Amino acid sequence: MNVQIPRGTQDILPEQARLWQWIENKVKEVTKKYRYEEIRTPIFEHTEIFARGVGDTTDIVQKEMYSFQDRGGRDLTLRPEGTASVVRSFVENKMFGYPNQPIKLYYMGPMFRYERPQSGRYRQFVQFGVEALGSADPAIDAEVIALAMDIYKSVGLKNLNLVINSLGDKESRLEHREALINHFKPRIGEFCKDCQSRLEKNPLRILDCKVDRDHELMETAPSILDYLNDDSKEYFAKVQQYLDGLGIEYTVDSTLVRGLDYYNQTTFEIMSSAPGFGAITTLCGGGRYNGLVEEFGGPETPGIGFALSIERLIAAMEAENVQVDFDDQLDFYIVALGDAAKDYSVKLLADLRNNGFTADRDYQDRKMKAQMKSANRLNANYVVIIGEDELEKGEVQVKNMQSGEQEEVKLSEFIDVVKQWFN
Amino acid sequence: MNVQIPRGTQDILPEQARLWQWIENKVKEVTKKYRYEEIRTPIFEHTEIFARGVGDTTDIVQKEMYSFQDRGGRDLTLRPEGTASVVRSFVENKMFGYPNQPIKLYYMGPMFRYERPQSGRYRQFVQFGVEALGSADPAIDAEVIALAMDIYKSVGLKNLNLVINSLGDKESRLEHREALINHFKPRIGEFCKDCQSRLEKNPLRILDCKVDRDHELMETAPSILDYLNDDSKEYFAKVQQYLDGLGIEYTVDSTLVRGLDYYNQTTFEIMSSAPGFGAITTLCGGGRYNGLVEEFGGPETPGIGFALSIERLIAAMEAENVQVDFDDQLDFYIVALGDAAKDYSVKLLADLRNNGFTADRDYQDRKMKAQMKSANRLNANYVVIIGEDELEKGEVQVKNMQSGEQEEVKLSEFIDVVKQWFN
Repeated sequence: MNVQIPRGTQDILPEQARLWQWIENKVKEVTKKYRYEEIRTPIFEHTEIFARGVGDTTDIVQKEMYSFQDRGGRDLTLRPEGTASVVRSFVENKMFGYPNQPIKLYYMGPMFRYERPQSGRYRQFVQFGVEALGSADPAIDAEVIALAMDIYKSVGLKNLNLVINSLGDKESRLEHREALINHFKPRIGEFCKDCQSRLEKNPLRILDCKVDRDHELMETAPSILDYLNDDSKEYFAKVQQYLDGLGIEYTVDSTLVRGLDYYNQTTFEIMSSAPGFGAITTLCGGGRYNGLVEEFGGPETPGIGFALSIERLIAAMEAENVQVDFDDQLDFYIVALGDAAKDYSVKLLADLRNNGFTADRDYQDRKMKAQMKSANRLNANYVVIIGEDELEKGEVQVKNMQSGEQEEVKLSEFIDVVKQWFN
Repeated sequence: MNVQIPRGTQDILPEQARLWQWIENKVKEVTKKYRYEEIRTPIFEHTEIFARGVGDTTDIVQKEMYSFQDRGGRDLTLRPEGTASVVRSFVENKMFGYPNQPIKLYYMGPMFRYERPQSGRYRQFVQFGVEALGSADPAIDAEVIALAMDIYKSVGLKNLNLVINSLGDKESRLEHREALINHFKPRIGEFCKDCQSRLEKNPLRILDCKVDRDHELMETAPSILDYLNDDSKEYFAKVQQYLDGLGIEYTVDSTLVRGLDYYNQTTFEIMSSAPGFGAITTLCGGGRYNGLVEEFGGPETPGIGFALSIERLIAAMEAENVQVDFDDQLDFYIVALGDAAKDYSVKLLADLRNNGFTADRDYQDRKMKAQMKSANRLNANYVVIIGEDELEKGEVQVKNMQSGEQEEVKLSEFIDVVKQWFN
């Protein structure tokens, strides 16, 4: 029997899960301050959602999706990213008609891409992302970027680089597209097959190619920033003005085109600049996607969002050696000796828990010494010792594991007494 | 373009997500008191894990799994339940060698079964479950049952029925198995095809059949309780003794065999007895599965656990009309009028959030009245009003939305002043 975990996936064991919970709480605190609210969409969607929503010419859709037919013959795909699902839900649930606009959403959950597993890259990974739907105010671009930066700061990261770019509006993109085709066409034969098919379909994708990144035509390719029309220029200037006002540092990089088809206007990435973080430094990417809601059959609705991988956030925390203090103390551990005492401890344990304490006991029928060791390993604040003698006298021994002091407490007063210790 | 959610799945929209978060926090509090720690396993596993772990003769494995091949030709299945994955992880990560035994784990996440969707039953649903691995002490059976009951109590449910049974140990089960075969064999032709194939493979399954539940042989079938050997009898008596000691009410039902192959000794279900809850009243099911770890290649390890659906827990809350108080207040809403004030509000908003407040503003370029309406709908405690005049004077108007009082605050002192209000 093959009892191994599927390649490219991981178990998050209790010690690591504690870190995940801590991070998730931080993320929730930040999103709350910004008033982004959670949405949960299914793990899979109709394949078409991603083919159309993410873009036919992307690596994700062409090579990396987990697609299958269900028992009813439906073409389904495990979600490779979050935006398409959120926009599908936005349209299907007619959120464009909700009174409070823009709709500010966040999601956090597993995504799936069939990529070559490598350090920090998994086939199942957890993305946190936000989507602000319904506003074309450049101030919300700044808000979304600030939120992403705040997430990283909230978990203690310091070495961050923010890179921004503008892909312009439709008009600007079309002009730039023409220029790109003219630039690459004469020598497209020197590029990879993917790039060749991208030339007419989506020449911007060529700039993002991992295979041809060193071709000399890459560096001389026409910059989108030279093709922005006045509206797009002004929009981008406003975003930068707001970031400046917020004291958020950034660099403008005209080659930042992002791996998804749906972006326009503002795009951005956040990279780790921690020494020794590794080759792939991108932690977070996002941008504006005006037009995507219409693609899904909704009314004209501007939108902007980003996504970040929690696995990579954790990798960055490790690279920066961020220390996290967990509350992993156990209030009480009960050491019971003898059958009658063990039986009694079932009730005593329940009493403690019912009064809000964290508590545990031995379930292995072990000797006193082994039970005390467990209490130590579990960071117990107090050990309650109960044997035949104690039971007969109606009392327990309680040992304070910090001070080492031990005292007798009457069973009839036990809960009242220990409550006072924790007040 | 088909922009609909896949059949049998649901979006959890913000208002509902708030309830989910509240429930998850309650669940985490209870698990912490009992010292169960979180484990997260992948959404899919090698299909064999479930075929062998859940049981070849179960409905789940035979009819309800989402199975597919990945791009590398691996046979994978979206997890239909949690125990097989946890036991796979327990063995693969050699948790049987961890110093603190038993290993007490919980999980919470989506599961997938291709069933006919109906009220409260989804093809993707969220299960919370616990597994205690490494102890054969009947006290831990009682602990696990008490934990399940506590989860429901913590979310305010009152109308609960606990049903328990014992399937005995291997010896008892074998004797009972013989008796069942002898009982059904002469008239097996009157039963459904599934039951006919179950007769030799797993006759206990027949008792669980939804098709033949009214056949007269069902009621007269030999009871497992009459076939328990002394050890099994004593074990079951001990579990009942502990439940009695904890004041947990229950009924014993010898027909409770559960839908999974791996159970032995203690099994239990918790049902809602809320009026109008609907036909399927089971909220939670679990039991002991000594032997399952060996099945996965691990050393002899006793285990017990349960799983419950959060969707059904919510349905029970609705049936009992449980009221939940959410903290859904917004500390500040900024109403900005005019371009300069709007630009300034970007910074003001960030200042509030950086100081730990929840805050939002208008991003739709709306008139004052519309912005005030938003503030109201968002339960804002304070509205900060800033226009050209205020900006010139270096101050803002702050309106307390409870009292209706309005006062001027200097921008230079703004954060210090509002901090005092929240102290």
